[in-house]
Amino acid sequence: MTGSSVAIPARHGKALVLMAGQAVKLVNTHGTQVVDCWAWRRGALEEFMSMEATRVWNQQLNPKVGDTLVTNRRNPILTIVDDTSPGVHDSFMAACDRQRYERLNVEGYHRNCFDNMLEAVRDLGYEVPNPTLASLNVFMNIAVKPDGRSLDTLPTLTQPGDFITFRAEMECIVAFSACPQDIVKIQGQADNTPRNAHFSILENGDYPALPVSQAWIPG
Amino acid sequence: MTGSSVAIPARHGKALVLMAGQAVKLVNTHGTQVVDCWAWRRGALEEFMSMEATRVWNQQLNPKVGDTLVTNRRNPILTIVDDTSPGVHDSFMAACDRQRYERLNVEGYHRNCFDNMLEAVRDLGYEVPNPTLASLNVFMNIAVKPDGRSLDTLPTLTQPGDFITFRAEMECIVAFSACPQDIVKIQGQADNTPRNAHFSILENGDYPALPVSQAWIPG
Repeated sequence: MTGSSVAIPARHGKALVLMAGQAVKLVNTHGTQVVDCWAWRRGALEEFMSMEATRVWNQQLNPKVGDTLVTNRRNPILTIVDDTSPGVHDSFMAACDRQRYERLNVEGYHRNCFDNMLEAVRDLGYEVPNPTLASLNVFMNIAVKPDGRSLDTLPTLTQPGDFITFRAEMECIVAFSACPQDIVKIQGQADNTPRNAHFSILENGDYPALPVSQAWIPG
Repeated sequence: MTGSSVAIPARHGKALVLMAGQAVKLVNTHGTQVVDCWAWRRGALEEFMSMEATRVWNQQLNPKVGDTLVTNRRNPILTIVDDTSPGVHDSFMAACDRQRYERLNVEGYHRNCFDNMLEAVRDLGYEVPNPTLASLNVFMNIAVKPDGRSLDTLPTLTQPGDFITFRAEMECIVAFSACPQDIVKIQGQADNTPRNAHFSILENGDYPALPVSQAWIPG
């Protein structure tokens, strides 16, 4: 049975707990929103989803359907079991934070994904011991140019209602942030305005049954 | 005046302290060795060199000569002021650690860059509060395939004596590890055997005077 839909308000964060075998379906409600994502092992928050370890595991710069996301201890934590979006997600750009907006010459406090993540896990009663800027930036469109090195920061390619589903491979806490970025044009519409997104929790059987991807070993 | 040459023994780490304006010249003595690198603000080790923030700062997947490396607080910490190698370095693959070798089916303990880094900073009398797998992997050759997503883990392209020079933009601790990887073929020779590397500390005037690169702001 599919759980009820929960809003991630524009410019804010929202966290949830998943049991192993449950999944979270993240919906790009307006089709224009980048959503940053973090995850931690519940009961041992010093173990968290690691983008750098995930790239080694899958030998992919950015993860795609069927790829498992792993922790800083090289344990599977989430697997992408479904994705109706064009499959463009970013694993290598830092989440926005207070200091990023200062560098963008914003006066005063600007809401940001890093603080949203901290607030969201606090709302669940947790404190993250070593929060990382290395989020999975779902729906974010950062292209590597043909030189293999230069980057293009581009608007999302998603449509309203596009969704991605992450299955939990361990009991974990997941945090989402509806990215408040409105200076750099990453949100997929002309006004570059952050919008809300939604998620729901799915039970085993309510999502495609894909295997856990295995650690890459040279042939 | 150029300081004396210090060995980074094969499969081991070595750390050093730089004052702002000093630089460290890292020499690929045998031309075949990958060297993982970390840096921290001295006196505030919770601030450390961040590969994900550096990619946003320079809008480059991997840094090159003239690029400044920044911390998780978006402050410049090191600038690449010289590089006689082909300029191929990796910023997005996790350092090897104990768990990586377990996943590579190695029996027993295998030396690894993560533990080397911890040992090297302990040798200087420091303990890192939140050590990261997101090292700068100097001389490491990870190619992004034309699809912009798949990765190729390849041997280094360096020659004996190639070097890269990092200038300190703040008083900092730098750790190097002569990568012990001998399963995945990343060291640039047929036997894939880790070798030693060397570094020396340079004073202002002994390296090219390049400016600090500025944070990317959309045009």
